[in-house]
Amino acid sequence: MIGSSSEKAILVSGGAGFIGTNLVKKLLNDSEEKIIILDNLKLGKKENVIENDKVIFYNIDLSEENEVKKFFVNIKNKFSIHEVWHMAANSDIPAGIKDPEIDFKDTFLTTFNLLKNLNNFNLQKFHFASSSAIYGDHGVSKIKENTAPLFPISNYGSFKLASEGILSSFVEKNNCKLYLYRFPNVVGTPATHGVIFDFISRLILAPNELSVFGNGRQKKQYMHINDLIKAMFTIRSKSLNKRNVFNIGPLDEGLEVKEIANLTVSKFFKGAKIKFGKDIRGWAGDIPKYQYSVESLLALGCNPEFSSKDAVIKAINDIGNQLIKN
Amino acid sequence: MIGSSSEKAILVSGGAGFIGTNLVKKLLNDSEEKIIILDNLKLGKKENVIENDKVIFYNIDLSEENEVKKFFVNIKNKFSIHEVWHMAANSDIPAGIKDPEIDFKDTFLTTFNLLKNLNNFNLQKFHFASSSAIYGDHGVSKIKENTAPLFPISNYGSFKLASEGILSSFVEKNNCKLYLYRFPNVVGTPATHGVIFDFISRLILAPNELSVFGNGRQKKQYMHINDLIKAMFTIRSKSLNKRNVFNIGPLDEGLEVKEIANLTVSKFFKGAKIKFGKDIRGWAGDIPKYQYSVESLLALGCNPEFSSKDAVIKAINDIGNQLIKN
Repeated sequence: MIGSSSEKAILVSGGAGFIGTNLVKKLLNDSEEKIIILDNLKLGKKENVIENDKVIFYNIDLSEENEVKKFFVNIKNKFSIHEVWHMAANSDIPAGIKDPEIDFKDTFLTTFNLLKNLNNFNLQKFHFASSSAIYGDHGVSKIKENTAPLFPISNYGSFKLASEGILSSFVEKNNCKLYLYRFPNVVGTPATHGVIFDFISRLILAPNELSVFGNGRQKKQYMHINDLIKAMFTIRSKSLNKRNVFNIGPLDEGLEVKEIANLTVSKFFKGAKIKFGKDIRGWAGDIPKYQYSVESLLALGCNPEFSSKDAVIKAINDIGNQLIKN
Repeated sequence: MIGSSSEKAILVSGGAGFIGTNLVKKLLNDSEEKIIILDNLKLGKKENVIENDKVIFYNIDLSEENEVKKFFVNIKNKFSIHEVWHMAANSDIPAGIKDPEIDFKDTFLTTFNLLKNLNNFNLQKFHFASSSAIYGDHGVSKIKENTAPLFPISNYGSFKLASEGILSSFVEKNNCKLYLYRFPNVVGTPATHGVIFDFISRLILAPNELSVFGNGRQKKQYMHINDLIKAMFTIRSKSLNKRNVFNIGPLDEGLEVKEIANLTVSKFFKGAKIKFGKDIRGWAGDIPKYQYSVESLLALGCNPEFSSKDAVIKAINDIGNQLIKN
């Protein structure tokens, strides 16, 4: 066990990425403790890391077993980590379907290597960025936290599920509480991936035409990053079971991809032609339509502020300003 | 894709182990095809492999990526594998709780390495030995196939769940049907592990006393291997969804561990003293009481013959004869 002379700290993996950056901002407002950020800067960016005396950044690839082990040996007498936010993962789902090694390494081994090195800390809470992808395709029925069986159709979904499993078994052995946040599509800045980021990036290169993967009728819920962070913090303070699992999403039924394309074009690329594909899925492993039940979240008194459409409109504006340098 | 000149074959991993040996016997009766057995002989035994012109045995460790790759390169022009029964896994759950590498390698990488090499075959059916351990501890409520959330409390359960996940995502990309058989405790011969095997092995060494892990009140369902094989073959022929998941178990409410101890002692070690521990669990990660709902199995017209008690009595007799060499 770690000596009491060491400094209390919160660890955030993927802390230079989209969700992680926003999370660290909130943690800085919320606490006086040191925040240790781990990120391999594959998607995350060094410039996203907030300069602050309380923030310590390490460029670590959590999928590399020896690198992780060495890191924890080095810090174990300095910091008493009592809370972990594990946000690091692959986020390119189609790439992971073509090559299963990608999610095996970046979505699963990141979790497994982290866990194997946390036994010596008196961990109180482990927060995990899980995903709607673990459920697989349940058609038009509303997905609850206890919807099953779980039949993921992407390796990303499989390895998020695998991570949930080893986390559940990890906390059985200690006093740590587990928080599984099953994310929807999340939008906002600093964007590193996702449909809006993709549309704007491609339109910058070829401003006259936008090709949409799939027929554009894919309908999903989008949540603004501010609402997501707010939801996680509500759950963290109000749900105190050994294992806590929550769908996080907005209250509406979602937005079609073609509407996102229209909104993007009309905001920044007026006159660009939008071309649609024929498939109902954007890519193999895409879930064309899904909708969360977020009753458990509402029961905690957490009301998401933005609808899917409002979140998308705000994100188009912000990501546009992030990417379009005049 | 494999040339049509190659010979049709069924692959059985773990085919020299307890379940695998019985499965191969049934497959030999059932089909004229070649049966390829893969086993690393860690728990399985060479002497369990049936000598038959149709059976081809390879000593392969499926957790070793390069070994597996080489094997499939060598056989790919000889055999057209259209069906896989993946039974290979760790079966020592307590060992896997102490050292997560054990189930990572033997329960998960065996599945992952197998899948990565099956893309070139025109696979029709993949059968997987899943487990009640994926559900975690649901107390006294009857566990159905759609019971959730899934909170495994052992690494064995986590990595069986992880395997289910990547299998679900694997079949999304091809025409293969997936069969997830969620096993209960299975008893019979040739035993390689399990409570009866453990009791008899220890009583052979010290015939006067049997120490039972836990207070003996752990109550679980036990299924005879003959009923398990029968159930899997019924499901295989009658359930033809893309993904098929079934709890397999007997119809009764199970048997307490202390009764198994009593039955073992009175059969082969009369007069031996039985000592019980104090914990409700046999070991950390043990699920002290669980009960399956097997309605889906019954709906297919499959009625297990043996009760938990009858299965245990028969298994004590058979495992006794297997282990006690006078």
